[in-house]
Amino acid sequence: MTDLPTLLAVARGDRPADIRLTNGRVVNVLTEEVEETDVVLSGPRIAGVGPGYKAEETVDLAGRYVLPGFIDAHVHIESSLATPPEFARAVVPRGTTTVVSDPHEIANVHGLEGIRYMLAASEGLPLTVFVMASSCVPATQMGTAGAVLGAEELASLDDPRVLGLAELMNYPGAIHGAPEVLEKLAAFRGRVVDGHAPGVSGRELNAYVAAGPRSDHECTTAGEAEEKLRRGLWVFFREATNAKNLLALLPALSAGSRRRIALCTDDRQPADLLDRGGIDQMLRMLIAEGVDPVVAIGLATLNPAEYFGLHDRGAVAPGRRADLVVVPSLEELHVEGVFSGGKLVAARGKAFWPRAAGSPSPPAPSMAVPDDALDFSIPRRAGRVRVIRAIPDQIATDAVHVPPTTAGGEVVADTRRDLLKIAVVERHSGSGRVGLGLVTGIGLRRGAIAGTVAHDHHNIVVVGADDESMRSAVRAVAGLRGGLAAADGGRILASLPLPVGGLMSEAPIREIRASLDGVVEAARTLGSPLHDPFMAMSFLALEVIPALKITDLGLVDVEAFELVDLWVE
Amino acid sequence: MTDLPTLLAVARGDRPADIRLTNGRVVNVLTEEVEETDVVLSGPRIAGVGPGYKAEETVDLAGRYVLPGFIDAHVHIESSLATPPEFARAVVPRGTTTVVSDPHEIANVHGLEGIRYMLAASEGLPLTVFVMASSCVPATQMGTAGAVLGAEELASLDDPRVLGLAELMNYPGAIHGAPEVLEKLAAFRGRVVDGHAPGVSGRELNAYVAAGPRSDHECTTAGEAEEKLRRGLWVFFREATNAKNLLALLPALSAGSRRRIALCTDDRQPADLLDRGGIDQMLRMLIAEGVDPVVAIGLATLNPAEYFGLHDRGAVAPGRRADLVVVPSLEELHVEGVFSGGKLVAARGKAFWPRAAGSPSPPAPSMAVPDDALDFSIPRRAGRVRVIRAIPDQIATDAVHVPPTTAGGEVVADTRRDLLKIAVVERHSGSGRVGLGLVTGIGLRRGAIAGTVAHDHHNIVVVGADDESMRSAVRAVAGLRGGLAAADGGRILASLPLPVGGLMSEAPIREIRASLDGVVEAARTLGSPLHDPFMAMSFLALEVIPALKITDLGLVDVEAFELVDLWVE
Repeated sequence: MTDLPTLLAVARGDRPADIRLTNGRVVNVLTEEVEETDVVLSGPRIAGVGPGYKAEETVDLAGRYVLPGFIDAHVHIESSLATPPEFARAVVPRGTTTVVSDPHEIANVHGLEGIRYMLAASEGLPLTVFVMASSCVPATQMGTAGAVLGAEELASLDDPRVLGLAELMNYPGAIHGAPEVLEKLAAFRGRVVDGHAPGVSGRELNAYVAAGPRSDHECTTAGEAEEKLRRGLWVFFREATNAKNLLALLPALSAGSRRRIALCTDDRQPADLLDRGGIDQMLRMLIAEGVDPVVAIGLATLNPAEYFGLHDRGAVAPGRRADLVVVPSLEELHVEGVFSGGKLVAARGKAFWPRAAGSPSPPAPSMAVPDDALDFSIPRRAGRVRVIRAIPDQIATDAVHVPPTTAGGEVVADTRRDLLKIAVVERHSGSGRVGLGLVTGIGLRRGAIAGTVAHDHHNIVVVGADDESMRSAVRAVAGLRGGLAAADGGRILASLPLPVGGLMSEAPIREIRASLDGVVEAARTLGSPLHDPFMAMSFLALEVIPALKITDLGLVDVEAFELVDLWVE
Repeated sequence: MTDLPTLLAVARGDRPADIRLTNGRVVNVLTEEVEETDVVLSGPRIAGVGPGYKAEETVDLAGRYVLPGFIDAHVHIESSLATPPEFARAVVPRGTTTVVSDPHEIANVHGLEGIRYMLAASEGLPLTVFVMASSCVPATQMGTAGAVLGAEELASLDDPRVLGLAELMNYPGAIHGAPEVLEKLAAFRGRVVDGHAPGVSGRELNAYVAAGPRSDHECTTAGEAEEKLRRGLWVFFREATNAKNLLALLPALSAGSRRRIALCTDDRQPADLLDRGGIDQMLRMLIAEGVDPVVAIGLATLNPAEYFGLHDRGAVAPGRRADLVVVPSLEELHVEGVFSGGKLVAARGKAFWPRAAGSPSPPAPSMAVPDDALDFSIPRRAGRVRVIRAIPDQIATDAVHVPPTTAGGEVVADTRRDLLKIAVVERHSGSGRVGLGLVTGIGLRRGAIAGTVAHDHHNIVVVGADDESMRSAVRAVAGLRGGLAAADGGRILASLPLPVGGLMSEAPIREIRASLDGVVEAARTLGSPLHDPFMAMSFLALEVIPALKITDLGLVDVEAFELVDLWVE
């Protein structure tokens, strides 16, 4: 840590810098220019930009570009299935030095204890992890989470890394002025409040914006993004593993609007992070589409810094954190070196910092599933049933109404029609409650997959071709104290333990990824053609994304914002 | 005041709005577009933008443009010579609905009491007056002000309208890490800090930026503005009565930098405000130079709102304050109507709101000048003297070294050479201290002018062709408890009383302007060709603007940042 007098002395040139980066080309997002000049560092900060400085150590960049470290404007670290230290090992070598995280997965399981665990587990990393206080725990009253966080509890988070209120997913509550939503907004008055308003438009959008949220990252069309920008929301372009919106939104990026657009990954699973990257990969996509690289880099640096009021980062400029990314080419944008807080922390994809010896202890598991609760039978009735239709690479679903397949007086899965059973088993309170439904689009031909990653309540969600396989898979994840499993009849084909909240593993992210590959491969042998059927399944339980979802309380018509029966009438 | 549930109901269309502006063209600075749509207001706020709303009252704009109310990013209200209520009557009908003021003139006279007076006197106006805590009271140790404000006193200002720390004029102190400057910066950590760094460049600029200020409004060339933008400062383009920089800075306005540029008037005297305008006049200048009107309007609305974190204004968008400006043409930009907080408060230049019955009492005058102190004689010596050379329409001066004109063993004014005497008489403590020097560029042929407006210490400054006229002028302003006066020998030609701090009058601004015209006219009859010799004189005492200035302690070489003798060696 450099004190200010030392920083000023280095800036003036009265004292040698710690490090001088010379012969570099500085991407200046403040003016959208590239400057051929030097950058000098003093402790964790940039002391000066310009020629004529002396330093203890000089790094010759030989014409490489110096960029500000990338800022991910909105991410749920839990979706990497790794704890913060291992998440950092995946994203920092790719150039991300700051993330604004919403720990709402673990908050839905463990409440404030979960949020405090994420803060503690991300201390001292070369990745700055900011936290937005999870606004929707539980997401709605139509599912049962492991915790309930009210306005007072959220406001009690006084860590300086807590920036504001996280995505306000209860958009009907905001629009209609629900008292519990207004209380949370009042508790965070004057601080940043992120939004989440998929498809909200017109007068309802006016009401949502008037309620207080300042951003949205749920746009799926350029027209939706343009309308939200016009009404005053910042728009975060998202490219998540299961919600790929970046290219569809690109037409909304104009000279007039680009100052109010940032980039976010939201939810990325480990293989995606390791093989494709994060913000760096989004930048490569934008540049490949013809966006000026300097403009694109601004979306991932200065813009989120300004949105969140992070005046100490987001640009290569004096006094700001020396979070820097070195790339040989702006066209390719492959990250070669990464400085965080003035230290070279990664190069050519390798993290240089050691694994911490002792991590903070995660909360005790939240897992209480009475074995006799696992009854997935659905008595036959007359009429059609509501079926959730999963859409590839989207977290939204369709609702379809079809006649069920029945056998022996019961509704059964029918793999010929790609109709599978889906169930959500409440796991936090031991209630034994099970929500039951049908799903198409997951594609299992036999067996079942289950997991404790089930947005956002993170009960146990299971999809299967027969009840026995479903029971086996649920018992397996319960036995692991959380995790993912694939079962065929009574046999467990593969599993991934996720003991931290039923969401994350403390293992190295490459090991997590290998185990995940194992369970996904098992799901493939069971017939699912999806890239990651577990991730697809996990969002089928998220009752704030249209159109039809399922919780432990049953099916949810998200547009009507109410629980609905399996049977159409 | 509308409560949030009501605002949301109006936004949703469930309840009629108070006012609907229809058939207007909305200048959307969020996306740099013009939208043909409606705007509806609920109480003091904008409830919605878009069609289909009902309202109690509909205003047909017949194709006129609706703009966000203008925000002046940096102004010393005291320079209008009017108190806040009368300043508002001048600027609101011109479209300015928000100003960020630095009350450092009255703070230098009356300290915190002066700042609290400005806060109290600006409450409840249709103009929102934000305050930056005056960082440099006194401006330096090289002059004597009426108060000293340390970090602790500044931080004690807990009014929600106090946004941060005002222009950090002691730039050498910031660059060199002077402890009293670092203390003030520490006291305002995390809040906005305005800068003031005329001509600072290169490594010194790096140090100044690293110290913490986030903006600068002292640029005089486009190159200076560009460098400051590159290093991370926001640049406020200034067009003050006595510092006209707007057109010189215009080349620095680029697509890449324009998000970090705002407009400010800094110091405008009453005739300028009444005849030419304020921010509206700067916008007309920019548009006349070919700047896209929508881009120009963004500089005066959204940009300063974002810089200061004023998320409740700066755009025509739901939830923001209904501070709106109506103009028939974007090319002419003559303000026709002004809404403030949802009410039509001015139209066609006329303010509609009544003058307040009772204003808060100003502080008791700070005026203690022993009559026997008024000795302006300068004994003759060998050698050359330093002379302040005033530059028309600039607050910077040059220093010239010339042989003095002498008579009877004394240095005397010499109107043939345009060499006048200048003196600064300490008025706050009764010390009787007088700083003496010579000035060229004011142009009096006889007599003297004096005033208590003498940036920033606001002692009595006097310029004259003979000592007797100087004494008469000083006695006149002391007798007024502050003000301006012109004298010829023992005769007072004209005077303007400014009893509030020696800086402002509570009279209507049109009356102040008439009296000011009177004293300026008197100065003209004494030979000064300047537009406003009193304003020019008032900045000759400002020891933080290069190159040679004068205080009660004597001449100041601003670049060397030290007191210097009248005699060159």
